[in-house]
Amino acid sequence: MKFNNIHVTIGENVTLGKNVKIGDNSIIYDNVQIGDNTIISNDCVIGEPLSSYYYDENYINPPTIIGSDSLIRSHCIFYAGSEFGDFLVTGHRITVHEKTIAGHHCMFGSYTSVHGFCKIGNYNRFHSYVSIGMLSECGDFVFIYPFVVLTNDPTPPSNKLIGVKVGDYSQITTSAILLPGCEIGKHSLVSANSTVNGKFPDDSFISGAPAKFIGKLSKMPFFNTENKKHYPWPKNFKRGMPWECIDLSEEKFSSQKNDM
Amino acid sequence: MKFNNIHVTIGENVTLGKNVKIGDNSIIYDNVQIGDNTIISNDCVIGEPLSSYYYDENYINPPTIIGSDSLIRSHCIFYAGSEFGDFLVTGHRITVHEKTIAGHHCMFGSYTSVHGFCKIGNYNRFHSYVSIGMLSECGDFVFIYPFVVLTNDPTPPSNKLIGVKVGDYSQITTSAILLPGCEIGKHSLVSANSTVNGKFPDDSFISGAPAKFIGKLSKMPFFNTENKKHYPWPKNFKRGMPWECIDLSEEKFSSQKNDM
Amino acid sequence: MKFNNIHVTIGENVTLGKNVKIGDNSIIYDNVQIGDNTIISNDCVIGEPLSSYYYDENYINPPTIIGSDSLIRSHCIFYAGSEFGDFLVTGHRITVHEKTIAGHHCMFGSYTSVHGFCKIGNYNRFHSYVSIGMLSECGDFVFIYPFVVLTNDPTPPSNKLIGVKVGDYSQITTSAILLPGCEIGKHSLVSANSTVNGKFPDDSFISGAPAKFIGKLSKMPFFNTENKKHYPWPKNFKRGMPWECIDLSEEKFSSQKNDM
Repeated sequence: MKFNNIHVTIGENVTLGKNVKIGDNSIIYDNVQIGDNTIISNDCVIGEPLSSYYYDENYINPPTIIGSDSLIRSHCIFYAGSEFGDFLVTGHRITVHEKTIAGHHCMFGSYTSVHGFCKIGNYNRFHSYVSIGMLSECGDFVFIYPFVVLTNDPTPPSNKLIGVKVGDYSQITTSAILLPGCEIGKHSLVSANSTVNGKFPDDSFISGAPAKFIGKLSKMPFFNTENKKHYPWPKNFKRGMPWECIDLSEEKFSSQKNDM
Repeated sequence: MKFNNIHVTIGENVTLGKNVKIGDNSIIYDNVQIGDNTIISNDCVIGEPLSSYYYDENYINPPTIIGSDSLIRSHCIFYAGSEFGDFLVTGHRITVHEKTIAGHHCMFGSYTSVHGFCKIGNYNRFHSYVSIGMLSECGDFVFIYPFVVLTNDPTPPSNKLIGVKVGDYSQITTSAILLPGCEIGKHSLVSANSTVNGKFPDDSFISGAPAKFIGKLSKMPFFNTENKKHYPWPKNFKRGMPWECIDLSEEKFSSQKNDM
Repeated sequence: MKFNNIHVTIGENVTLGKNVKIGDNSIIYDNVQIGDNTIISNDCVIGEPLSSYYYDENYINPPTIIGSDSLIRSHCIFYAGSEFGDFLVTGHRITVHEKTIAGHHCMFGSYTSVHGFCKIGNYNRFHSYVSIGMLSECGDFVFIYPFVVLTNDPTPPSNKLIGVKVGDYSQITTSAILLPGCEIGKHSLVSANSTVNGKFPDDSFISGAPAKFIGKLSKMPFFNTENKKHYPWPKNFKRGMPWECIDLSEEKFSSQKNDM
């Protein structure tokens, strides 16, 4: 019942690919491009106008690109001026601000926000209530868990912000805080509730408040529920990952079962 | 002005009890059953379809049950396949995923989400911004405060999740994290910002990151604003609780004043 | 496309100033007053009725005042019975409960909630996901960052709550928790992830869990990106502040760039 074409508003210069579905009460603002087979569920806003829209009569909405084969669940707001690769999946009520460039196969859980001017790689999974501060950069296969904040202001309030960088395959777990300028290497894990400052090499296990390098993650005795040493995790986790041969048409929508 | 029957959509095989009110712009999907006297405020979704809805033409919505005498405030999303007892009260914009079984007299504050496959007892109160991970189990009279996470993934990302258990009457306070497999006994209290791993007996006061058993909660010098030893709290707190003789028709909607 | 006068609902005894714009699907309940030049974007609720609305046939909505020159972004809910000064700017989906008195030039980021019975001064900036508990009091120029909680319940669950006080110019940074009755002086800074109890004098740098007074903030070696000692911050930060001569018509909407 989401797709009755009721109260759907489409702006000017909007390009919809083949087979695109737009849910009821959704608004697609000017200069938005949506790839083939993408589903925008109900009550979404794609291409939300920037601040100057409210007072500048000559406001022109910057272009927004949503890739193909994506599913944006209800009540999400995507500001104009961002670009998302194919196979994006979101939960409900996410907010993405302008100048965000994200790769393909990303998942963003409910209530998550990306504050703009961010670079996000491929296969990133941000769970619910993740706050990605402006100027953040995440590599590929970065997983971020609830109530994590990627900050950017070294001396609040500052005139100039410094973003955070997270390397490929790294896991930033529940309620961790990455302080401004913090850099996490590849294949690392930040433990829950850590407050992290500084730069950490690849394969780091990082824990504490303030957080310290505890040891090489691959050497830590972290065993999974199959009793195997878990890290580096790509050898043990395949769901939705490109190293698994799967039927993506099924996978893309069901794989976030425990991610949203 | 919430109940003008404007843009209310009701699916097939929906059973509405006596005296049920549905707010404007709300959607009740197929196979939802709502008990007598329940109010669904405006812009709610009850029975939100699961992922396969988007690609399976033969999708059938699992049954959803909302009890009687409940108040669901605006902009909430309840996925199909869950069951809630009578006297449920919610704040705004909560999200409840499938396979959640909750008892009666529960309250869920604004922005809270229950990620599904959870068992929730009677008289639970989850404040705002609570994240209840999949496979969580809460007893009766469990109170959970803002930014608490009940996690489930011991080695993120895992194939198999392990839920958290919280015993009757326990209080999980602000921003605490219960790590996967954690078990909190009855009549316990987890202090703010704690990171909790392992199993704790009844009547525990649990604090720290990593959290430790500090002592028996009933023996701790915690005095309330009436200068009485507060724990076990049921002897000192009655508002909305069944050991108080109150007019529930009044209480059910006003008692969450400091809970949302 | 936000202001087409589609599905705008205006209650009784509503006073709209000159030049007020109300976005589509927004509802203004009874007894709301909105100042000149204010923009209420789409899907907002101003004057949301209190609990007794649902069961009291004689319910009368308490008066709600929104000042002039304000911008309330989409999907916000303001309960009836609060009062906001001029030049308010909000993100999306904020929730403000009754009996909140806020000064002028405040900014509240997306997903933030103010739980009511609060006093908020002028030029406060609450970023996203801030939870301001009931009975909180903030001075002027108080900045609060994501996932901060101002709590109020000393022995959860209590019958009587004790609010938190934050002095002028103080900065409460990411994920800090201010415990019930906590008082932070003026020109202080609470570091990220701190759990703060007790009373702290002006010019405090407060850090840790449990948090301690580390030293006078003005004496700490905190240098900003211009390599200047940053605190007291008003000498170094002017954006949107009244000590800067700026064209407010531009500033008011663009200055929260890194605040939401």
